[in-house]
Amino acid sequence: MIQNDLFLKALNNETVERPPVWMMRQAGRYLPEFRALREKYDFFTRCKTPELASEITVQPIRIVKPDAAILFSDILVVPQAMGIDVELEDGIGPIIPNPIRSLKDIEQVRIPDINESLGYVMDAIDMTKEMLNNEVPLIGFAGSPWTIFCYAVEGKGSKSYDKAKGFCFSEPVAAHLLLQKITDTTIAYLKEKVKHGVNAVQIFDSWGGMLSPTDYQEFSWQYINQIVEALAPETKVIVFGKGCWFALNDMAKSKASALGVDWTCSPKNARYLTGGKITLQGNFDPSRLLSPIPTIKKMVHEMIDEFGKDNYIVNLGHGILPNIPVDHAKAFVEAVKEYGK
Amino acid sequence: MIQNDLFLKALNNETVERPPVWMMRQAGRYLPEFRALREKYDFFTRCKTPELASEITVQPIRIVKPDAAILFSDILVVPQAMGIDVELEDGIGPIIPNPIRSLKDIEQVRIPDINESLGYVMDAIDMTKEMLNNEVPLIGFAGSPWTIFCYAVEGKGSKSYDKAKGFCFSEPVAAHLLLQKITDTTIAYLKEKVKHGVNAVQIFDSWGGMLSPTDYQEFSWQYINQIVEALAPETKVIVFGKGCWFALNDMAKSKASALGVDWTCSPKNARYLTGGKITLQGNFDPSRLLSPIPTIKKMVHEMIDEFGKDNYIVNLGHGILPNIPVDHAKAFVEAVKEYGK
Repeated sequence: MIQNDLFLKALNNETVERPPVWMMRQAGRYLPEFRALREKYDFFTRCKTPELASEITVQPIRIVKPDAAILFSDILVVPQAMGIDVELEDGIGPIIPNPIRSLKDIEQVRIPDINESLGYVMDAIDMTKEMLNNEVPLIGFAGSPWTIFCYAVEGKGSKSYDKAKGFCFSEPVAAHLLLQKITDTTIAYLKEKVKHGVNAVQIFDSWGGMLSPTDYQEFSWQYINQIVEALAPETKVIVFGKGCWFALNDMAKSKASALGVDWTCSPKNARYLTGGKITLQGNFDPSRLLSPIPTIKKMVHEMIDEFGKDNYIVNLGHGILPNIPVDHAKAFVEAVKEYGK
Repeated sequence: MIQNDLFLKALNNETVERPPVWMMRQAGRYLPEFRALREKYDFFTRCKTPELASEITVQPIRIVKPDAAILFSDILVVPQAMGIDVELEDGIGPIIPNPIRSLKDIEQVRIPDINESLGYVMDAIDMTKEMLNNEVPLIGFAGSPWTIFCYAVEGKGSKSYDKAKGFCFSEPVAAHLLLQKITDTTIAYLKEKVKHGVNAVQIFDSWGGMLSPTDYQEFSWQYINQIVEALAPETKVIVFGKGCWFALNDMAKSKASALGVDWTCSPKNARYLTGGKITLQGNFDPSRLLSPIPTIKKMVHEMIDEFGKDNYIVNLGHGILPNIPVDHAKAFVEAVKEYGK
């Protein structure tokens, strides 16, 4: 049994004395210990070496002490396993040297055997579980099919993913074929993670907010929902769609156990849009961690008051930024632990 | 008197037989005629040479025939006039070589004499008015203080403007000083445009959607509202905040005559959030112009049905993309003109 089960209780809609807290990208560059490993090993080496991935996963648990761990990895290991080359360029981010731009490209994308191509992730889970020794729950994750599609078609990060969107709008049949392949792979991938003991999974839809509500249904949500339907019988599923406030109402009707919210959607709006009961997760503006510590603590307490302490998981509204002082990250977590005291 | 006054009627909440239409960035790279001038003259030469700016402004009126013209210029001419160096790098966008990062930097930013530093814009308006010969109304515009601030502090375009936001959150007093200077300059700038005969002004808050609702009030809306208050007695003011659905309710209570909406906010949500009556402008996803022409026309008609033909200005939800075929842009405008026929 997990010793600190606050996170699992919140996912189960159980009453808690204070909400659990973790931070997206909590295993990241703001930690000097992470940066030390980053200097020695490149990105995919860190992802693909279970000793490194597990060590990086556990670093924030020791240092900033959140209530859940999230496996260090990257959403782009999935398209990589599907035969799409992914490179990481320092200071630029991920690059797909041969972006997917035709039906022929898509036909060549494979649905991989998970243990063959992503076994290193499973090894990292096994090793992390051992290191965590049931102290806190472990979250596994994947990108949403739409978000993976964005990278695969656009070829790199973008402000608006116009190429990816243009492809959907001019060649919808081909687009859906690729989205379905990513979905099938993701389902198998997350199921395997559950077999290896992750206590919940989160789907990151980083670029869903680029779509209109109607296009979101067609190109993103229907695929996320396939994943939710497939995984919900086996584990708790959290869906986080950045900028997807307009879809919260539909998401709340799905089998997801919790929904992530970003900081542009106020707690009041988020509760209103989701009917008030489903567990919500978020939504502190990551840049707000640059505020003075007393301001951070005050804002965290106000945020908990607004979401309510139950059916709520404290988190940022997106990943923690590399330039956040560790003390400020610690203050964020401490503020939650001090809530109501 | 303006011959085609549909746009002005919509701003006046008058009943129309069909809504007016124009497109953000309608004088832009998708037009071969624009690209021809772009090859010969660099960006700021085009902005600062009234003969070029007016010619570029009128190009789309002749080619795609929208119901309003918008003066070709750039929001960054304002910080440039305030003594902040702005360069435009091909393929990268605007660069501020010496970003504003301290109170001392801000103290050195000047509030310029408009006619001295931005007289070329007024000359371009005079020349454009003559060329338009009262055929359609002319819109003048400015960036919101927050959006100008983002560029000035960040130093370049960004996905999340973390440096600009971090500056606000760690040095709010200094941030407000700069925001007020930009606001004062913008008010004087837009008033001068009105004197030269623009028929309406639009404020572009491109990066307001990076802020939480509370921070939006503090760092963006209060300054936009100063501009609205100052300009509303003299002209019609349109406020467009990209990603600012959460602020639509407050915006609707201001003296703005119309509010821009992006495609992530459905017509139904936009009407609900604004109380149903204020003129709305938008919100076709620019990428959707890559759809086949029959799809574009169908979607435009559905959009008008959803917003309602009155108190509505058809537009995109952001600027038209450079890769849109001219025929598709024409189809967008034609679809509006065919509405109800």
